Amino acid sequence: MSLLWGFITDFFTYETTKSVVVKSWSVGIINRVVQLLIIIYFVWWVFLHEKAYQVKDSGIESSVMTKVKGFGYHNNRVMDVADYVAPTQGAAVFCIITKLIVTEEQFQGFCPEVSPFQSSIHVAGIITGACVNSSEGGRCEMEGWCPAENDKVIMQPMMEVENFTIFIKNSIRFPMFNVTRGNFPSSLNTTYIRSCTYDPEHNRHCPIFKVGDVLRYTGQNFSTIAQTGGEIGINIEWECNLDESEERCEPHYSFTRLDAVFQKNAISQGYNFRFAKYYKTENGIENRTDFRTLHKAYAIRFDILVTGLAGKFNTVPTLINLVAAFTSVGLGTVLCDIILLNFLKGADQYKAKKFEEVSESQIQILLSRESCSQLSNKAEEKISDDSGAVSLYLDQQL
Amino acid sequence: MSLLWGFITDFFTYETTKSVVVKSWSVGIINRVVQLLIIIYFVWWVFLHEKAYQVKDSGIESSVMTKVKGFGYHNNRVMDVADYVAPTQGAAVFCIITKLIVTEEQFQGFCPEVSPFQSSIHVAGIITGACVNSSEGGRCEMEGWCPAENDKVIMQPMMEVENFTIFIKNSIRFPMFNVTRGNFPSSLNTTYIRSCTYDPEHNRHCPIFKVGDVLRYTGQNFSTIAQTGGEIGINIEWECNLDESEERCEPHYSFTRLDAVFQKNAISQGYNFRFAKYYKTENGIENRTDFRTLHKAYAIRFDILVTGLAGKFNTVPTLINLVAAFTSVGLGTVLCDIILLNFLKGADQYKAKKFEEVSESQIQILLSRESCSQLSNKAEEKISDDSGAVSLYLDQQL
Amino acid sequence: MSLLWGFITDFFTYETTKSVVVKSWSVGIINRVVQLLIIIYFVWWVFLHEKAYQVKDSGIESSVMTKVKGFGYHNNRVMDVADYVAPTQGAAVFCIITKLIVTEEQFQGFCPEVSPFQSSIHVAGIITGACVNSSEGGRCEMEGWCPAENDKVIMQPMMEVENFTIFIKNSIRFPMFNVTRGNFPSSLNTTYIRSCTYDPEHNRHCPIFKVGDVLRYTGQNFSTIAQTGGEIGINIEWECNLDESEERCEPHYSFTRLDAVFQKNAISQGYNFRFAKYYKTENGIENRTDFRTLHKAYAIRFDILVTGLAGKFNTVPTLINLVAAFTSVGLGTVLCDIILLNFLKGADQYKAKKFEEVSESQIQILLSRESCSQLSNKAEEKISDDSGAVSLYLDQQL
Repeated sequence: MSLLWGFITDFFTYETTKSVVVKSWSVGIINRVVQLLIIIYFVWWVFLHEKAYQVKDSGIESSVMTKVKGFGYHNNRVMDVADYVAPTQGAAVFCIITKLIVTEEQFQGFCPEVSPFQSSIHVAGIITGACVNSSEGGRCEMEGWCPAENDKVIMQPMMEVENFTIFIKNSIRFPMFNVTRGNFPSSLNTTYIRSCTYDPEHNRHCPIFKVGDVLRYTGQNFSTIAQTGGEIGINIEWECNLDESEERCEPHYSFTRLDAVFQKNAISQGYNFRFAKYYKTENGIENRTDFRTLHKAYAIRFDILVTGLAGKFNTVPTLINLVAAFTSVGLGTVLCDIILLNFLKGADQYKAKKFEEVSESQIQILLSRESCSQLSNKAEEKISDDSGAVSLYLDQQL
Repeated sequence: MSLLWGFITDFFTYETTKSVVVKSWSVGIINRVVQLLIIIYFVWWVFLHEKAYQVKDSGIESSVMTKVKGFGYHNNRVMDVADYVAPTQGAAVFCIITKLIVTEEQFQGFCPEVSPFQSSIHVAGIITGACVNSSEGGRCEMEGWCPAENDKVIMQPMMEVENFTIFIKNSIRFPMFNVTRGNFPSSLNTTYIRSCTYDPEHNRHCPIFKVGDVLRYTGQNFSTIAQTGGEIGINIEWECNLDESEERCEPHYSFTRLDAVFQKNAISQGYNFRFAKYYKTENGIENRTDFRTLHKAYAIRFDILVTGLAGKFNTVPTLINLVAAFTSVGLGTVLCDIILLNFLKGADQYKAKKFEEVSESQIQILLSRESCSQLSNKAEEKISDDSGAVSLYLDQQL
Repeated sequence: MSLLWGFITDFFTYETTKSVVVKSWSVGIINRVVQLLIIIYFVWWVFLHEKAYQVKDSGIESSVMTKVKGFGYHNNRVMDVADYVAPTQGAAVFCIITKLIVTEEQFQGFCPEVSPFQSSIHVAGIITGACVNSSEGGRCEMEGWCPAENDKVIMQPMMEVENFTIFIKNSIRFPMFNVTRGNFPSSLNTTYIRSCTYDPEHNRHCPIFKVGDVLRYTGQNFSTIAQTGGEIGINIEWECNLDESEERCEPHYSFTRLDAVFQKNAISQGYNFRFAKYYKTENGIENRTDFRTLHKAYAIRFDILVTGLAGKFNTVPTLINLVAAFTSVGLGTVLCDIILLNFLKGADQYKAKKFEEVSESQIQILLSRESCSQLSNKAEEKISDDSGAVSLYLDQQL
């Protein structure tokens, strides 16, 4: 029973380090200045600038709806949305066709290639091996959709594309924080949305973008890109500090030419794709033949790329950084100790004060004395009989 | 040689802080209670609840395949998948058309606009400037695909859509941990998959979703959304604790109306898009004219949005949090010191025990004495001749 | 005034812990070895291997452009890109059709189902309820596009797909670090790009992939997948250490069969989708009827999945890990203290040196003495009159 009581009294003791207080102006000032610098670093940089008290998440859930508007002339026709946008559903990636090279009335069969001595890249069908006589200019025969496409035709692109507008509806969610936002505030009235165009300074909430403006922001020339096609990225960046009002979690638009990284490579400049419209001839009922119109479309492809980074206060990073801050303040002592014990006048005297020395030989002498005398029990009682549990020392050492 | 030996013996010494053990019930209990609270916080909240011993990654690699099934009547026709799903490939974003406003037999040419004194939004072609006489109702002439579309037609949507089913196949990978999962377990048998429909309670592994159910989960009314179109998000959330069995890394489905954030804006309600089917007339061979059928499709767009957050044990965050935990336990001493040295009875006596004072004047006196006597060498030997290396102090200070 | 001066002199003091230096080989060596192990762990594992000095981000912005090349024979026709790729725009997800089951000339109407006693899964239209007499083999009548599709036809897939090539252009950006990269270096010359095919050993920068190679890398058999269709993932992984040259931030390609996780389920094997081409009959002008050709396409769907993980030096994680490292080195003392104070010969003597004891009774005696004598003021002056501000103790305790 008294053993248990002894254990309890030992447990509810409190250990604190014995300290040496040095009343020296030089070390005192260095100490406080170093501490101040560390505190400033943590408060200003780590907590205020880097927001180390937040958990951050860049896993964003995004849905994009787009709608293009405008009319243009191409190839003596008026083109509308159903003609020049592909795919038509208004997804996050869509193309506005600026130039169409149309090969009408292609039937399956055999015909000569378009250009003589064709390199493997421009072949429009399977080469049969038979090469047509020189009256055809030395061209080889191919099997496939005939006549073969001639994509060397020079054609004026649809210049009205520059004035087309793109309406973007983007709703996002940060699943970690369950916050949902739209790219334009609900306070915008219908008349404004109907008439505005985006402008980073005056109309940064307007969700309608003029194609010409977008190209200008990326530093691209419209007439060049209309000829060759190209890929334009409309980045919507959501950088949200969710400790503030959700209303301030707003999109930031930026515009890049996505194929710019490949600019130096001669190959794969611009953007184009081929598609066909399929028809049937009406040679009497039940006797129809398939034919198609092949389209080589040069287009501006728009990729709406949505990225997000949200941060919100969380106890775990806050505490870890606070503990790191406090610990770092303690690091100042290391520097001051070095100065105090080495470079200050009277360093040896300070050392004598700070360090108490025990060597094995001293202990040896003490032990031999103790075994002689009968005072060992008393001596033992004087010192703390700490049972060596880790928890008892930890608080002193850390 | 003896210098080196001296250095080695100095190096292999061990410094430990000198401590004051306070045998006081009040401070002792406060000390242990504070330590207990800190330990509980770390064990329960940081480690068990927030799983601070894991690295987490939200960068997920996802592939979605969808397949819609069902038949409906619209405009006196039976519509099947090839008619009402767009795009047809079964990707993560697809539309089910609920209502089609069809403008048949459009040819390129000149014709009057549909409604008189048209606002700029509903124009169907390029206004020529010539305005047709009043017998036409004051309507202006346009150039483009004629006749112009009249999208004010009232039409009944395809009500059978409510019973259509969507089959979703989603395979994901966490590239950081190289874990691959599918949205339904391989143990599900074919008969079950063929006949089940998803239900969060009874059939939460079934990958087949009834459109009507999905709309109900989002709180939407089917007949309204079928009329105007809308965007529905099917979120598949993968929250995986990879320290457990991979089998328990399962998807969680949730359903939202994506355009809900824009509900308050009168513009851009619902969802629709236009597409055209192209035909050729057969006015004798090689004399064909293009015409098209324009479709304004009101559709429910489904976006399958996949997000993931996986966590797995990693030594780096574990260690940092453990060190933070130990250090925080030490912070308890700060509180106890304040109590001990200020608010306890006998605080001044405790202070006298804890702090040893050295002032510059004391050192001055010692130094002057030493320079007089010849005992300086001896004094120097007594104290630890630590060479001031950072590593020697660090362990004491931290 | 002298009070303020006193406060200032007290503030600019420096507290350092009083230490006991133990000159013992055993504890000294243990101490240094433990410290060395902790330092090695931090330097080698935490800093060099896990790069804990970096902030990492897996939120990547990616844009993919693809282009397929090749010709094949199917159903006695030559198929080109416009025929077998869907969707045609060259996005990140596209299908190469390997087998087409074509149902020609479907008109709206009533007709018998294809197979008798149809199960609900293969129905091609709405069952009217009327069942045709036994001369039709007991088949039921349906309403919809007639004749009904018979997808049980055995057909040879287009074997040339194996030699088709896929050109992939991928440009990415890490928005957190504002680094943009393309999947092939600008130093690659045009002739090389035109002729190369990807190979993980010899041509790992070549952006052109042969379909047969891709299937081989995933361990799939071409003729099986061409029959049933399938989903193939081409993963582009960007693992970038942005502390090094950006030039070394290169893509790494890997190939997986995405539907492999569902392999064990009998349902939903392979990949197929239905689409229709729409035509009009020419029964005199303005008297046209719609008909369509239904295509059931078995295809290999390619998903280009781009993931990224970039790391860059940042002061916040570096500092936190450094502080954790320093603190951990201090943890070595805990172990050494346990050994010193419990297991070493003369442990009790060491304890006596390390711990100074104060008990409440001692303080009581001191207090009673003080109140008697008039020396209390003097005693107070001797000890540090620390005002208990947290900052004053923190540096000692941590």
